Amino acid sequence: MSQVYVHGYQPRENERLQNQAGTLVELLHADTAYPAGSTVLEAGCGVGAQTLTLARRSPDARFLSVDVSADSIAEASRRAAAADLTNVDFRQADIFALPFDDESFDHVFVCFVLEHLTRPVQALAALRRLLRPGGTITVIEGDHGSAYFYPDSPAAQAAIQCQVTLQERAGGNALLGRQVYPLMVAAGFDEVSVSPRMVYVDSSRPQLVDGFIRKTFTAMVEGVREPALAAGLIEASGFDAGVRDLYRTTEADGVFCYTFFKGVGEKPRT
Amino acid sequence: MSQVYVHGYQPRENERLQNQAGTLVELLHADTAYPAGSTVLEAGCGVGAQTLTLARRSPDARFLSVDVSADSIAEASRRAAAADLTNVDFRQADIFALPFDDESFDHVFVCFVLEHLTRPVQALAALRRLLRPGGTITVIEGDHGSAYFYPDSPAAQAAIQCQVTLQERAGGNALLGRQVYPLMVAAGFDEVSVSPRMVYVDSSRPQLVDGFIRKTFTAMVEGVREPALAAGLIEASGFDAGVRDLYRTTEADGVFCYTFFKGVGEKPRT
Repeated sequence: MSQVYVHGYQPRENERLQNQAGTLVELLHADTAYPAGSTVLEAGCGVGAQTLTLARRSPDARFLSVDVSADSIAEASRRAAAADLTNVDFRQADIFALPFDDESFDHVFVCFVLEHLTRPVQALAALRRLLRPGGTITVIEGDHGSAYFYPDSPAAQAAIQCQVTLQERAGGNALLGRQVYPLMVAAGFDEVSVSPRMVYVDSSRPQLVDGFIRKTFTAMVEGVREPALAAGLIEASGFDAGVRDLYRTTEADGVFCYTFFKGVGEKPRT
Repeated sequence: MSQVYVHGYQPRENERLQNQAGTLVELLHADTAYPAGSTVLEAGCGVGAQTLTLARRSPDARFLSVDVSADSIAEASRRAAAADLTNVDFRQADIFALPFDDESFDHVFVCFVLEHLTRPVQALAALRRLLRPGGTITVIEGDHGSAYFYPDSPAAQAAIQCQVTLQERAGGNALLGRQVYPLMVAAGFDEVSVSPRMVYVDSSRPQLVDGFIRKTFTAMVEGVREPALAAGLIEASGFDAGVRDLYRTTEADGVFCYTFFKGVGEKPRT
């Protein structure tokens, strides 16, 4: 996993990832809980945005959270300690070369990771080997092609497309969410079931207007301004107009839609 | 409402509208029920696709279903009779000039209608006048900008855009679903709450593969082939490639997403 990671490791970016996790916790994770005594591998934990939620919701399960970035692991460990979590261990490791025995986990959790990988099916297959037969994997991914809004805006769509193009050039796929089902099936999981988690925001939902439109989605798009301009994907004025139009959707008559996809599958028992 | 209606009155088109209604009944209507003794105006009932569901689910409410098309009203009446429904009356009328007294209905239901109107806010305001104070309106609309799929296909998107453009030229708006909240607020309703109803289809859901991807969405797009070619919006080969790519999403690794928006609001009591 030597590719460039699109989302930054900078403090403001970390704050964005935390805001995203806070706003979306219920939508994405309310139905994820692991039994007492089970061992869960979180592959690609980043700075721990999901880890804290997972570990709190399953206090009697044991989590091992890994990430390829040593800096992220350090930050995630600090946060877990600050939150007094005692059921999580962290380790720096590459998802394609995880230093664990086959069939050594009861469950695997992988969230916002496949979108950054050139070979997502191979990554899932590698994780499958680490699962005991009958163990489950949970996959969560967004899909930037699911973003639409009112007022509609070609400029905003062009700014979003910069993110999609940069992520593609880095070997990832910002439109991966819609593929969660076929990817999990291709990786050899059984009983795959995908449920979309749509974030619908209008002005009757001010917490999502702020937490999702402003601090999650638009902040993410704004975060690619410099690399998009440097890559010659767009003119500065066009990008800035797109960002303004994204903020325009936060007004009283604005609407914003985005969908995450959550898949659960099982490692075949035979 | 003298504008051209995009969806046809032909037998095959009616079959499509029936298939659509059958597949989506639970998703769209499961949470709509009217109290015994209440009077409900269904504005724009078409051939009765929703009417039968509504009337069956609220057998002790009284429905008055109107449509601007006399042919549609005749067909809807025939279906209601065949289904032994006794709590529905039908009448041909224009939504902008309904022959009813102000405040004479407890509830209004309007589904797949606003997308065809040049002045949707005015239509909603006209319906509001017919409601008693405290009465509710339920609005359901699709949004073709919510359609995305795997494999993605610019040709398929271009074919869908033909439908969007034709509907716009006829005075309608195929992207109206996302606007249900601001339109209802602008028309003077209180307590407006919109919930998206996303149709997510992968090959683990064969009934939706057939009922939604093939018989509802792709059939609808195929239905605009002749007018799209006549209007010079696209070459025949491009359109046909787009339709092929829509059918491609019905294969084992295919995925299809579409979202309807359902809004409920109340006429102010003061």
